[in-house]
Amino acid sequence: MKTVIERGEDVSRRRPAAGTRRPHPAFDPRAVSEFTATRLSVYVRCLAVLEAEGVRHVSSQHFARRFDLNSAQIRKDLATFGEFGVRGVGYEVSELHKHLASILGLDRTRRVVIIGAGHLGQALADYGGFQSDGFAIAALFDNDAGKIGARTRTGIAVRDIAELAAIVAREGVAIGVITVPASAAASVARRCVAAGLKALLNFAPVRLNLPPGVRVRNVDLKIHLETLAFYIPSPATKGAPA
Amino acid sequence: MKTVIERGEDVSRRRPAAGTRRPHPAFDPRAVSEFTATRLSVYVRCLAVLEAEGVRHVSSQHFARRFDLNSAQIRKDLATFGEFGVRGVGYEVSELHKHLASILGLDRTRRVVIIGAGHLGQALADYGGFQSDGFAIAALFDNDAGKIGARTRTGIAVRDIAELAAIVAREGVAIGVITVPASAAASVARRCVAAGLKALLNFAPVRLNLPPGVRVRNVDLKIHLETLAFYIPSPATKGAPA
Repeated sequence: MKTVIERGEDVSRRRPAAGTRRPHPAFDPRAVSEFTATRLSVYVRCLAVLEAEGVRHVSSQHFARRFDLNSAQIRKDLATFGEFGVRGVGYEVSELHKHLASILGLDRTRRVVIIGAGHLGQALADYGGFQSDGFAIAALFDNDAGKIGARTRTGIAVRDIAELAAIVAREGVAIGVITVPASAAASVARRCVAAGLKALLNFAPVRLNLPPGVRVRNVDLKIHLETLAFYIPSPATKGAPA
Repeated sequence: MKTVIERGEDVSRRRPAAGTRRPHPAFDPRAVSEFTATRLSVYVRCLAVLEAEGVRHVSSQHFARRFDLNSAQIRKDLATFGEFGVRGVGYEVSELHKHLASILGLDRTRRVVIIGAGHLGQALADYGGFQSDGFAIAALFDNDAGKIGARTRTGIAVRDIAELAAIVAREGVAIGVITVPASAAASVARRCVAAGLKALLNFAPVRLNLPPGVRVRNVDLKIHLETLAFYIPSPATKGAPA
C-alpha cells in the first residue's frame, strides 16, 4: 500500500497498527471557523448513522453522496484535524467517528444551564440531544415564582434565577442557553456572564453585546423556514384543491 | 462610469434610472444549493439591519466585515441571482434588500401549519419569526383530545389533526412544521404528504423517507450546542469557583 498522497485524491496514509491512536494534531479551535465546526458536528452524526448500519469503511465520495455533502470539503475539513483515510479503503468509520467526537468534546460531559422556563426552555430541557452524548442539563432557571419548583415532563426542576451563579460555579457549567423573551435577553445575558458562563446559545431574536472571551451563537429558527420556502413555488390561488 | 466588469472586483453595472427594476434573472431554485439559499436568508436579515441604521450603500468588503461573512462568497452568491452593485458605490442597501426578499418570497405571505402542540410546537407557533415577514401560522394541530381547542399564549387554537387535509387545501398551505415526538414523526410526515404539503421542517430527531417532490429540512438543535462547545476548553475541575 502506497503512502504517497496525490493531489485530488483522498488524504491517505498507511494504516496504523491496530489500536494505535494518532495524536490530535495541534490546532487552535479559535482559528477554526464556526462553519467548519458545524460541519464537524454534521460529520459526527453521519458517521454514527454509518456505524449503526455496520459500515466499516467509507470513501469521501460515498460519504458525500450518501449525505448530500461535498467530498472535497470533507477531505479539506478532515485534513484540518488530523490524518485520516486509507488509500483504496477510505475512512475507518468507527475510528473517525470516535476521533471527531473527541475533537468536539463529546466524549466528556458538559453541563448546560437553560435560562427561561417557557415553552421553548422546557422543550429544550426535555430535548433528547441536550441530555445525551456529551451534554447534560445542570438546571433550568426562571424568575417567575409561579414556575419555580415545577418540573418538566422529564423531571427537570425549574430553579430560581437567583441561584444561577452558585450552580454555575458548583457544577462547573460553561454553556448557557437563553430562552427568555427578547425584552429580557440582554439583562439575562449580562447575568450569565457575571455568573461565569463562557458561551451562550441565544434563542431570543435580539443581538447580544457581550465582553470579549464570551462566545455567542444566535439561533434564528426563521432561517429554516425561509430556506425551505425558497424552493416552493409561490402560493397558489387560495381555494385550489390540493 | 464604466460598465466594464473586471475580475476580482464587485460585479458592477451602470446604475439604472431611478425606479427601474431589473428583472429577476432566470434561475431554477432546484439548481441552487440549500447552503446558498440559507446564506440568502442571512443576507436579507443583515441588509435589514443596515437599512434600519440608515445605511444606503455597502461594499461586499464592508458587508463581510460587519457581519463576519466572506466577501468573495457574497459576490458569487449575489451574481447567481442578478446583477447588483455599482462600481465605487457598492450595493444599494434598500434595493438589494427588497430584491433578495422577493427572491426568497418574503414579499408574499406563506401559510404554515405546525403538527404537534407540545412545548416546541407551541413555542414555534408563538415565535415572532413564524408569524411575520412572509409567514403566517394557518393552524396548529394535535391528536390529543386534551389539547384540541386550547389556545397558545398568542391565541392560536390547537386543532384536530383530522382536519389537516381540509385546512391545507382551503388555505393553500405548502409548508408543514413537524414537532411531534420521534416515534410519531414518520406517520405524521406521511399524513402531511397525503394532505398535499410540499415541504416539511422536521424537528423530530429522526430521518424521514418521503416521496420525490417533497422537500424536507431536518432541524438538529444539538448541532448548535456542539458547535459552541467546540470552542470551550474541556470542563474544569468541578468545584472550581467561577
